[in-house]
Amino acid sequence: MKISKTLFSLFTAASLTCSAISQAQQYQIQHLEPLSWWTKMASNKLQLMVHGNNIAQLTPKFTTPAIKVVGVHPGDSANYLFIDLELATSLTPGSYTLDFYHKKDKVLSTQYRFNARNTHSAADQSFSPKDVIYLITPDRFANGDPSNDNQPTLSEGLNRSAKGGRHGGDIQGMINHLDYIAAMGFTQIWPNPMVENNQPNHSYHGYSATDFYQIDARFGTNELYQQLSEKAQQKGLGLIKDVVLNHIGSQHWWMQDLPMKDWLNFQAQSFTGTHHKRESLHDPYATEYDKTQFSDGWFVPSMPDLNQRNPFVSTYLIQNTLWWIEYANLTGLRVDTFSYSDRKFLTRWTQAISREYPNINIVGEEWTTNPAIVSYWQRGKINQDGYQTDLPSLMDFPLQQALVNALTKAESWNTGLNQLYQSLANDFLYPDPGNLVTFTDNHDMSRIFTQLNQDVARYKMAMSILLTTRGIPQVFYGTEIAMANPGTDDHGIIRSDFPGGWSTDISNAFNETNLSTQQTEVLNFTKTLLNWRKSATAIHQGKLVHYAPNNGLYVYGRLLPLSISGNNVMVIVNKNQKQITLNPNDYPAITGQSTKATNIITEHDYALTKEISVQGHSVMILELKR
Amino acid sequence: MKISKTLFSLFTAASLTCSAISQAQQYQIQHLEPLSWWTKMASNKLQLMVHGNNIAQLTPKFTTPAIKVVGVHPGDSANYLFIDLELATSLTPGSYTLDFYHKKDKVLSTQYRFNARNTHSAADQSFSPKDVIYLITPDRFANGDPSNDNQPTLSEGLNRSAKGGRHGGDIQGMINHLDYIAAMGFTQIWPNPMVENNQPNHSYHGYSATDFYQIDARFGTNELYQQLSEKAQQKGLGLIKDVVLNHIGSQHWWMQDLPMKDWLNFQAQSFTGTHHKRESLHDPYATEYDKTQFSDGWFVPSMPDLNQRNPFVSTYLIQNTLWWIEYANLTGLRVDTFSYSDRKFLTRWTQAISREYPNINIVGEEWTTNPAIVSYWQRGKINQDGYQTDLPSLMDFPLQQALVNALTKAESWNTGLNQLYQSLANDFLYPDPGNLVTFTDNHDMSRIFTQLNQDVARYKMAMSILLTTRGIPQVFYGTEIAMANPGTDDHGIIRSDFPGGWSTDISNAFNETNLSTQQTEVLNFTKTLLNWRKSATAIHQGKLVHYAPNNGLYVYGRLLPLSISGNNVMVIVNKNQKQITLNPNDYPAITGQSTKATNIITEHDYALTKEISVQGHSVMILELKR
Repeated sequence: MKISKTLFSLFTAASLTCSAISQAQQYQIQHLEPLSWWTKMASNKLQLMVHGNNIAQLTPKFTTPAIKVVGVHPGDSANYLFIDLELATSLTPGSYTLDFYHKKDKVLSTQYRFNARNTHSAADQSFSPKDVIYLITPDRFANGDPSNDNQPTLSEGLNRSAKGGRHGGDIQGMINHLDYIAAMGFTQIWPNPMVENNQPNHSYHGYSATDFYQIDARFGTNELYQQLSEKAQQKGLGLIKDVVLNHIGSQHWWMQDLPMKDWLNFQAQSFTGTHHKRESLHDPYATEYDKTQFSDGWFVPSMPDLNQRNPFVSTYLIQNTLWWIEYANLTGLRVDTFSYSDRKFLTRWTQAISREYPNINIVGEEWTTNPAIVSYWQRGKINQDGYQTDLPSLMDFPLQQALVNALTKAESWNTGLNQLYQSLANDFLYPDPGNLVTFTDNHDMSRIFTQLNQDVARYKMAMSILLTTRGIPQVFYGTEIAMANPGTDDHGIIRSDFPGGWSTDISNAFNETNLSTQQTEVLNFTKTLLNWRKSATAIHQGKLVHYAPNNGLYVYGRLLPLSISGNNVMVIVNKNQKQITLNPNDYPAITGQSTKATNIITEHDYALTKEISVQGHSVMILELKR
Repeated sequence: MKISKTLFSLFTAASLTCSAISQAQQYQIQHLEPLSWWTKMASNKLQLMVHGNNIAQLTPKFTTPAIKVVGVHPGDSANYLFIDLELATSLTPGSYTLDFYHKKDKVLSTQYRFNARNTHSAADQSFSPKDVIYLITPDRFANGDPSNDNQPTLSEGLNRSAKGGRHGGDIQGMINHLDYIAAMGFTQIWPNPMVENNQPNHSYHGYSATDFYQIDARFGTNELYQQLSEKAQQKGLGLIKDVVLNHIGSQHWWMQDLPMKDWLNFQAQSFTGTHHKRESLHDPYATEYDKTQFSDGWFVPSMPDLNQRNPFVSTYLIQNTLWWIEYANLTGLRVDTFSYSDRKFLTRWTQAISREYPNINIVGEEWTTNPAIVSYWQRGKINQDGYQTDLPSLMDFPLQQALVNALTKAESWNTGLNQLYQSLANDFLYPDPGNLVTFTDNHDMSRIFTQLNQDVARYKMAMSILLTTRGIPQVFYGTEIAMANPGTDDHGIIRSDFPGGWSTDISNAFNETNLSTQQTEVLNFTKTLLNWRKSATAIHQGKLVHYAPNNGLYVYGRLLPLSISGNNVMVIVNKNQKQITLNPNDYPAITGQSTKATNIITEHDYALTKEISVQGHSVMILELKR
């Protein structure tokens, strides 16, 4: 659905003078963005981008005094006009007339809609450590509406047999399986981006936007996305949008006629790739060359890199994010390739979002295992260079790597479980480590089951740690049935189809049909753990306390203050192949006054006055009665 | 030489009353420390520790009003007395009478010496990036005085055939070879500790002090140590003292009669070892148990751990350090196992040293490759927890590991040269990275030649990088002749005897007799590099600028501001096996306006307008004419 076919067809030649009629034929509006806005926003400013034939020659005017045009900026292309608006507090919801004049002649007219802002934004109760996020690659989860698989206006059609092709998964597929997701014990959904990606190939992943304001028709419509959010929330599931600020797809409509000469980085040059050396931003010895290469270089030729130093690009991106939060009543955001965007822009963007949604949680992706670099971006960090953002959360890549090392590397003074311990000890670098998003794997790396060499015992250990240590866990779809990518790191294989998402699937994880014994075992284990976690207050709010690992044994607790009721939790990680026997009294900082405990998986009761046996290669999770 | 035999024999019964004479026999002074002090110190406070039979019963009094006793503290043992003094600004150099009274009877009398403080302290021109430090294990360097090899009062005698035994090296050995050290191009000497270590075995390493105020007689005397400092400085060599604040040797004289009940950590308990988990100090989740285990646990049963939370221990250590700086006119300090001491004490100790010697450089050992932890301790660091020390420098363990990885690991996006690059990029964590002490190896790890698999080309690369990147390089004795420890990590082998240090040695590096071709090659290379570095202002004061490594090539520069004259330096590291050709114009941030360059090793001249060939596995160091 294109704007030009809907809103802008509303203008009628009848309202124009005779001389203007002929001129109007020279002018047309192809895009007017944001598509709409809201009253009662914290900021009273709005900047419209108008795209249309020769539009830069015209003078815009709103007919209501409540919307004041305070600035007009033509693009470097004659087909763009940026209009700065100041909105009066008296502005009420409704459609307002926006006229365009050529000299004294009104040559175009359109309507611009202001809606009433949500009074109870989902972002007020954003995602937090009480939650577990289910990461979904929409094209690969469930095909709920096969009728939308091919679209005449979108170049790539269905090709389920191609690893990197479109498999047909969509929003309706997610809606159809919200019950499954909720029953598993997840509480938030993070789908990979679903805005239009009208790219000739690999369009399924969603990270090459060709229209920032339209859901890709192969996934559904903007309205269906709204419904997904609403229906998910009815089942206790929040919706997190995956936001890409750094780049667009090479088939974005801008690319036919770029608004300004500096809309993109390296706009005039031949393709210049990023070298991914994020260190250069912090490095006291970096050349400007390396800094520019990192921030301004493109990922690939099909992903033009946006120049957010251009204030019009910056404002466009900020407003687009706000638009989706309000439009779809989102609980939060995930930001792709966070650090690749301009540093000052990131401060401006995060501050602008926080201003409108002070409680919203936003998790940025900064893919490095160096916590000094990850923590640099978190709100409240005291950086040596004084830099600050308002980004509340980051993806915890250091912990992800440490967790895998903990379970796959042999124990030594600084390997194995000590890597997990050291990684958590590094939390002194973060102003708010409890708000980091933790994960065992995601859509860009080998599945955790493969990283753990297809070992079920280690898989259970990983999930047990992920779901009990500090942070907000994120689980990649299919992890609950131990999906794997043996022998390959191909992204198309990592993002394989979820069994049961297609009507012809023989195996179906949604209703546990034709799953292997191993899949069923893993599914039930994960489901039990997730559902227990939903009400485990100590995991949501309890302080993490751990003892340094010793001889393949790592013991930690989650401890509530007396003011909060609930059981404390004690976690015993036994990395040894053999069963070990442990004296709970050796961990008084965790056991405290408790004398009884219950294994949350087996429901077996223990007296803490006696020794406890923990089997080899396992994690025991105990609730401690207070 | 014991104090009791010298100063304290001065007191004469003649000055005592008759009734006191019989009492005096009950009392005696065995130790009075510091041994002496100085006038015109910044602090007017001094605390004497007096150790002697029943001394705690007595009341001390100085006969001069310029030395005021402002506090007297008996130890928990009746044989210790701590005397707080306040020194008047009018106090002049000289010996002053200190009397001890039992009730009204003077029962003891001694003299205490105040000397005139050095007006030109060597610490005013402390070690800095202009320097290269030569680290010597004194017992293994040169036996200059075989007559002191065995001492009747010291338990361990000469046993050169034992890896961990005493080999006879001494201060006279170092004095004899100062010309060699200076000619090599070193400018500072850091010998491992030389205070008395009267331990039954492994006493040679020096880290188990049994007397904080006496040079071990097998190394020489306090006076000879003073001479070493003086003679070294005449040859342009500074002397850095290796200070141990954390622990003593189990045969320390205190151990027969501990001054207080809390003089040691875990004093009343059976042996409790440290677990070396320095993370626990920073870790937000650490138990008190782990923090205590780290700081208070002993290294080994033969190294009792000092409790610096006891203010008398703390003051003793501070005064002892000040004493040696002033006594031996030291240029600086190296502090062993820095972080293992009490955190508040470390602030107090560093501030007290800085107060007296504002320009002194002090390098602490914090053995972790985690720069977030190393940088925590440096002066000026803005720590999340507000902690501050006055420690100017740290040993750069992260860079040491990165340098070895750079030269031994295959190139990939985050291994090989990228590890060196990433490690330097982490310098944003340090308030003063240029003041870190860099090294390829030391007395506690495999020799660099062994770490680099006995590869001369890689060795030359390592030395070239060490001596041209930022920091204050430290070179372990014997590195200049590629000493190695193939197939073993035994410390006694790592600290093998330097050839030529013993009169019977067939091979002699001091006069280049009977060295292998490889040893001669390495020696000459290192000597050329070190001597060039002595006057390479750009290495001392130039800003480091580097380009991210690419395809096994890493290029960096050291650039002087226009206000400082001298050539800039360009360093080209070619990790590839093959020769590469490089266009200097691709590195404008380094070459700047320069058009000519000279290879500092081959003295070959280059035009920077043309391509330069760099052979495989080599580092080319170019001086750029400005």
